[in-house]
Amino acid sequence: MRMTKAFIPTLKEDPAEAEVISHKLMIRAGLIRKLSAGVYTYLPLGLRVLKKVEGIVREEMNNAGALELLMPAIQPKELWEKTGRFELLGDILITYKDRHGKVCLLGPTHEEVITYLVSKEVSSYRDLPIILYQIQTKFRDEARPRFGVLRSKEFIMKDAYSFDRDLEGLNKSYKSMYDAYCRIFKRCGLNYIAVEADTGFMGGDVSHEFMIPSKSGEDIVAICPGCGYAASSVMADCIKEATSHKPQASDLKAVKEVNTPGASTVEKVSEFLKVKPHKLVKTLIYKADDKPVAVLISGAHNLNEIKLKRYLNCEILEMADDKLIKDATGGPLGFSGPVGLKGVRIISDYSVAGMNNFITGANKPDTHLVNVNLGRDFNLKEWADLRYIKEGDLCPKCKKQNVKLESTIEAGHTFKLGTKYSKNLSATFLDKDDKDKFCIMGCYGIGINRIIAASIEQNNDKDGIMWPLALAPYQVAILPLKMAHEESVKIAERLYDELLSQNIEVVLDDRQESAGVKFKDADLIGFPVKVIIGEKALAKGKIELKMRKDKNPQLISEKDALKNIKELLKK
Amino acid sequence: MRMTKAFIPTLKEDPAEAEVISHKLMIRAGLIRKLSAGVYTYLPLGLRVLKKVEGIVREEMNNAGALELLMPAIQPKELWEKTGRFELLGDILITYKDRHGKVCLLGPTHEEVITYLVSKEVSSYRDLPIILYQIQTKFRDEARPRFGVLRSKEFIMKDAYSFDRDLEGLNKSYKSMYDAYCRIFKRCGLNYIAVEADTGFMGGDVSHEFMIPSKSGEDIVAICPGCGYAASSVMADCIKEATSHKPQASDLKAVKEVNTPGASTVEKVSEFLKVKPHKLVKTLIYKADDKPVAVLISGAHNLNEIKLKRYLNCEILEMADDKLIKDATGGPLGFSGPVGLKGVRIISDYSVAGMNNFITGANKPDTHLVNVNLGRDFNLKEWADLRYIKEGDLCPKCKKQNVKLESTIEAGHTFKLGTKYSKNLSATFLDKDDKDKFCIMGCYGIGINRIIAASIEQNNDKDGIMWPLALAPYQVAILPLKMAHEESVKIAERLYDELLSQNIEVVLDDRQESAGVKFKDADLIGFPVKVIIGEKALAKGKIELKMRKDKNPQLISEKDALKNIKELLKK
Repeated sequence: MRMTKAFIPTLKEDPAEAEVISHKLMIRAGLIRKLSAGVYTYLPLGLRVLKKVEGIVREEMNNAGALELLMPAIQPKELWEKTGRFELLGDILITYKDRHGKVCLLGPTHEEVITYLVSKEVSSYRDLPIILYQIQTKFRDEARPRFGVLRSKEFIMKDAYSFDRDLEGLNKSYKSMYDAYCRIFKRCGLNYIAVEADTGFMGGDVSHEFMIPSKSGEDIVAICPGCGYAASSVMADCIKEATSHKPQASDLKAVKEVNTPGASTVEKVSEFLKVKPHKLVKTLIYKADDKPVAVLISGAHNLNEIKLKRYLNCEILEMADDKLIKDATGGPLGFSGPVGLKGVRIISDYSVAGMNNFITGANKPDTHLVNVNLGRDFNLKEWADLRYIKEGDLCPKCKKQNVKLESTIEAGHTFKLGTKYSKNLSATFLDKDDKDKFCIMGCYGIGINRIIAASIEQNNDKDGIMWPLALAPYQVAILPLKMAHEESVKIAERLYDELLSQNIEVVLDDRQESAGVKFKDADLIGFPVKVIIGEKALAKGKIELKMRKDKNPQLISEKDALKNIKELLKK
Repeated sequence: MRMTKAFIPTLKEDPAEAEVISHKLMIRAGLIRKLSAGVYTYLPLGLRVLKKVEGIVREEMNNAGALELLMPAIQPKELWEKTGRFELLGDILITYKDRHGKVCLLGPTHEEVITYLVSKEVSSYRDLPIILYQIQTKFRDEARPRFGVLRSKEFIMKDAYSFDRDLEGLNKSYKSMYDAYCRIFKRCGLNYIAVEADTGFMGGDVSHEFMIPSKSGEDIVAICPGCGYAASSVMADCIKEATSHKPQASDLKAVKEVNTPGASTVEKVSEFLKVKPHKLVKTLIYKADDKPVAVLISGAHNLNEIKLKRYLNCEILEMADDKLIKDATGGPLGFSGPVGLKGVRIISDYSVAGMNNFITGANKPDTHLVNVNLGRDFNLKEWADLRYIKEGDLCPKCKKQNVKLESTIEAGHTFKLGTKYSKNLSATFLDKDDKDKFCIMGCYGIGINRIIAASIEQNNDKDGIMWPLALAPYQVAILPLKMAHEESVKIAERLYDELLSQNIEVVLDDRQESAGVKFKDADLIGFPVKVIIGEKALAKGKIELKMRKDKNPQLISEKDALKNIKELLKK
């Protein structure tokens, strides 16, 4: 591609709309342009990268035996009602009424459609296993679209769906997809961490997230630098403190009521009583399937509702409202405590074990109790791991090193769905034993756009993007520094033709611009290899080869250029 | 691809939902499945064909210097209000309110978005000309989606947009796209006709449609078998009959009123008076920008409102309502006539020239006039070509042969848009003369899905599809007729590996099915080349090669197979 014939509008300045580096660079390097909040146009350069990622994903899916198809964006509401997700997804769904008044939605994902298809087309165990996938545009009405293509309303996903006869088959399909994902992220040149994750609105039992460490990530992963344990912070187990601990009776101080006007949060109580949060025990009242539950946790920790919901195994978990709190505790919101609590199930996080002389709410307005002690002032029957892991916590696996928390971008997610969708949409097959059974499903998603942004997050410097070879829009840029210098241009053109004839993806910067502008744009866009053709070096019969990631150029003769470039492109 | 690993659900019977042959065969051969009215899933085989067409279109666009990008489906209403098309397109637009109450639409086309983009990114004549294109999913809420992917609500288009400094540039860009379209249709193996067409809701001055002759087509094209003239029936000029003709006074009969109760249409009057329609002159009252216009046309012809609107050069043209007819003619709807009409502009189609002693409405209820004659009973100042061309009409170009009308599928449409969009969306550039000017635009669309259906319409027989090599999902199918026959299978597998290693797209039908089933499926799907491996021929050391389009197989030895297959694939 000649720069004079290309459409690569680069920008000198960071755009005001962008917060994170990948978003800034994608706009500055002319990869994308915003149309409206969370909606982007991929300019030619951005589309080339998109196609590179798609190509890698497609190859690895095909290698894993998955079959590509293409489902529509427009989906009938009825299918989503059958799985209960029309209501569950709520505002995130983009819905419209067609001219006949029929409600349709734009697919944010395709479990319903693929299961419907398979329910019609698969009838025998002989048709299984099957893994179907597509690379297709998804629509989600994000409440807060941001960070460019990292969280947008319209984005491209590779979504795959496996259908198996039994759990053994699912495990096999799941592994083949998991392995393909590892290969994909590796080929895309990404550092990634695969972690156990919550299944969220997809449902199912097991899921893994493929996380790309990045400052701009919105998801936290806990990592043990010792044993390599990694888990999404939502899922990471926490060390279970011994609950058998009994403090010396002589250490126990007398419990007393203190007046704490308006201090209804850990922060306010800590400030008012001039104590650290870890001296407090929070008492949170929840409504679990309509019944109140009191949950105790150290003031230094945050309750993980996903763990609580799993522990309670309830359908609906929500914070109790004022009335339920009053009914259950006798006091108002923000002043609950375990002492004197009757007829309410109490569960404590392990973080409370080992605490003594702590502070709790008194179940009275503006009142707390200090020097509360477990076993003396109240008793506990249930202990559970209910908190979020924290930076510095002991690794739950090796129990030797302290975990670190890293911000990550979720770029892939795999789920063992089981029969949730096949039951709701009657996707059955006749098994060998002549019995109708539900297909056992898995689903597997990769955010194509996110891979691009994540790659930039991991590969940039002050000058711009540093594409890995596999994703670069063009791998080589030829920069004749002075278009007025005939010999430079002649050699540049010759080399350009030579590389093109070898199917090397090359850009010739034939613009009437200064050397400075050409260098800046080439580094901003991040071509992996620059071929610099300047008067000075040419006087010595040399041209320069420079990798975007290296400081030092290689001086070579024109006749060695192709060989040397090919060498660099192998790296 | 091994058939046992593929997902190609073929059907023996025509599906009830399908009317036209391409729709039937796309379902039967396992290319598509319907999700809801006008919304289809492309199964793996269909997607392969889709990718083939996309590949050809992309190559020819790139060869023509067009640059590929990817615009979003979600578009803000505001852009469409600026061009007036939000209202103009009406119900065809799919619109929704997002969670913040903002109205968005799903792009049925992208003139607004591309012009907005160019208005931001192009500033100088140096940036022009530029042609940008995308291959992207469009959404239209069709009133009557039908014929499978020929008229669907969600479909894939290649849409290109050219931006030029001046008309000369537009003409050049237009020609390069026109030529690329010709190459695309040719490479896709389609018979096509490029015709002048109406610009419709796109606006602009000149447009061409690329029409694929097919029984299932919804658009009519007039073709002269002599000189090759071709035009959409909407646009085709009609021979201008000489208006100087004056009948002999002796031939003129006396005009008289006849009672024609309830006979308000040509059909009813003809039947009632027992005359042929060509003895009638219809008088149609229109409202053109609020003024009444009477239009005369022979009862044997149909008025072409597009021609009338162009002739009148008015903004809004509609049929007059009862009140306006009464005011203008004194009579009711269905009984208008030119005799005695005062204060109303009268225009006649040339088909009235040369008629005498004809029948018209009498501008009275249930009354017609017979033996009306022009020049005696009323006068005319304006003649125009206002009718649809008819099968058998003299060719308007060579005036020697009679035109034929053919049903066609519109597969491509090109438009010279001029400045309609650049004016409304301020897409200007600073020209050499330091003046800000509006970009001169063209736009160019190809229906990717329609090319597939059109190809099937033109290439099928009673057994199924007959793909041209360029579009075939796989070019070769290897059919070992009896899986229990070890030698057949061994040779089939060996040949399969050999073809794969040569990057030939091949299917191995390794199913435990009868020879009959394998033949039927292969012919239904329409693989261009079949390699048939059967016990009988093998006994003589031979295997069979058979082109889908030929009756007779070629008997060859295994060692010659690759060479012979390659030969066939060159055709």
